[in-house]
Amino acid sequence: MTEPMNERAVGVFDSGLGGLTCVAELIKLMPHENIVYFGDTARIPYGTRSNETILEYAKQDVNFIKRTNVKMIIAACGTVSSIVGKTKDFGGDVPFTGVVIPAVQAACAATRNGRIGVIGTPATIRSGAYGKAIRNIRTDAAVIGNACPLFVPMVEAGITDKNDPVVKSMTERYLKPIKNEGADVLILGCTHYPHLREAISEFMGDDVTLISSGAEAAKYALNTLTGQNMLSSRTDQGTVTYYTSDSAELFRENAETFLGGKISGEVNRVTIEELIRS
Amino acid sequence: MTEPMNERAVGVFDSGLGGLTCVAELIKLMPHENIVYFGDTARIPYGTRSNETILEYAKQDVNFIKRTNVKMIIAACGTVSSIVGKTKDFGGDVPFTGVVIPAVQAACAATRNGRIGVIGTPATIRSGAYGKAIRNIRTDAAVIGNACPLFVPMVEAGITDKNDPVVKSMTERYLKPIKNEGADVLILGCTHYPHLREAISEFMGDDVTLISSGAEAAKYALNTLTGQNMLSSRTDQGTVTYYTSDSAELFRENAETFLGGKISGEVNRVTIEELIRS
Repeated sequence: MTEPMNERAVGVFDSGLGGLTCVAELIKLMPHENIVYFGDTARIPYGTRSNETILEYAKQDVNFIKRTNVKMIIAACGTVSSIVGKTKDFGGDVPFTGVVIPAVQAACAATRNGRIGVIGTPATIRSGAYGKAIRNIRTDAAVIGNACPLFVPMVEAGITDKNDPVVKSMTERYLKPIKNEGADVLILGCTHYPHLREAISEFMGDDVTLISSGAEAAKYALNTLTGQNMLSSRTDQGTVTYYTSDSAELFRENAETFLGGKISGEVNRVTIEELIRS
Repeated sequence: MTEPMNERAVGVFDSGLGGLTCVAELIKLMPHENIVYFGDTARIPYGTRSNETILEYAKQDVNFIKRTNVKMIIAACGTVSSIVGKTKDFGGDVPFTGVVIPAVQAACAATRNGRIGVIGTPATIRSGAYGKAIRNIRTDAAVIGNACPLFVPMVEAGITDKNDPVVKSMTERYLKPIKNEGADVLILGCTHYPHLREAISEFMGDDVTLISSGAEAAKYALNTLTGQNMLSSRTDQGTVTYYTSDSAELFRENAETFLGGKISGEVNRVTIEELIRS
């Protein structure tokens, strides 16, 4: 507790591995920061559960991350970000962001025709959170949302090749309504989806800008920390410490498959009992 | 506790909705029995998690089902059945069965060439439980197993039509190695898979017998209760009481989609805290 505030880590959490797309961007943008990552792999996926359960899990995740003594919290999970709503209050005294506002700001800046597509988990789309946030910025925007329940399991099963017939078929099925409505920007409203970027981009065409919600949240965090003068003064490479609610070994294995390379940093197990108590 | 043992309910649990294929068979086979069903929908799926986590969840599920005062427990979940191993001990003083032994007995009775295919979740296949159980009965059997990680999410997303290109492609991908090895029996080692029966049957051909592990577990339960003289003496239709760890409303909705019709019986919510305490 005597550690100066600026030298504390940036906390990131997700239902599983998706938030690692945000961590990768954070490392690029602010290499000197320490990062704490929590992936709730014992309870993934969140996006097919009820709002009540998602909110309960999200609260436990935030309380756990807070206990690691961080200076900012990023919910790098489209589902949590959509369900918690007024995200500013969610972190209490610690600056907090989800992925919705950062993604929506980028989408509103990028669109030319005001037609914005959003894909996400069933809970994310059901919440209407992206649509509400977009209309707060651009009241005239047309928002075309579609839930993609099979995308997360596909990514987790490594089925992401743009030439795979299953990838092609599911991409067409989920994105056709959005393409038909003439969206020129598509928000990847779940941090797993960048793994399907090639297939999505091929189907939507070069004229459609894809917004990665995890990467935008990382940029938003940089702006927040810079604006509040909270960046670390260290000059060496920061470290990443991982926590997971299922096996640490399985996390490392799957994370390395997910990121396509070794992860450096220790991986620690947190039990569900500890999460609930926290 | 003054209720006579024979009039107690039969307890069935699963990670989610898959075990309802077992319940449907139980209602057919023993219409006068009361049934208690628990689906751990707040933590489904189990089959992609570590053995340690699966075992922990399974213990909580069994303890919860026991508290409802049942005369027998069926783990209508291929993953739990594979991981708990010596299933006889798992129920303590209450007769207990998983789906592995019942399915394996049916498969060994059905095979002509001794070549038995098994499909299941990653955890089920990794455990080798079906193979070990088969070789206990037929030491000369050839067992060809394959994990099908996308089948559960496909069923949960309603993607099951045998003419759907995604169903066709995934079925071929997962079953080709088994077909190529000339299996004449295929165990559907996960209680979700009967929903893909038509596609699986079309790909494997009419000569291959499909064994539904949930339905076999129901038959096995009938034999156990009959053998131990534990059937109810009631003559009216039994009731089913459902418990779920996520929203009761969502459970009813999804269960009705899963079963293709209304479910009768009340649905009650159990919180994860209650499960852990139990």
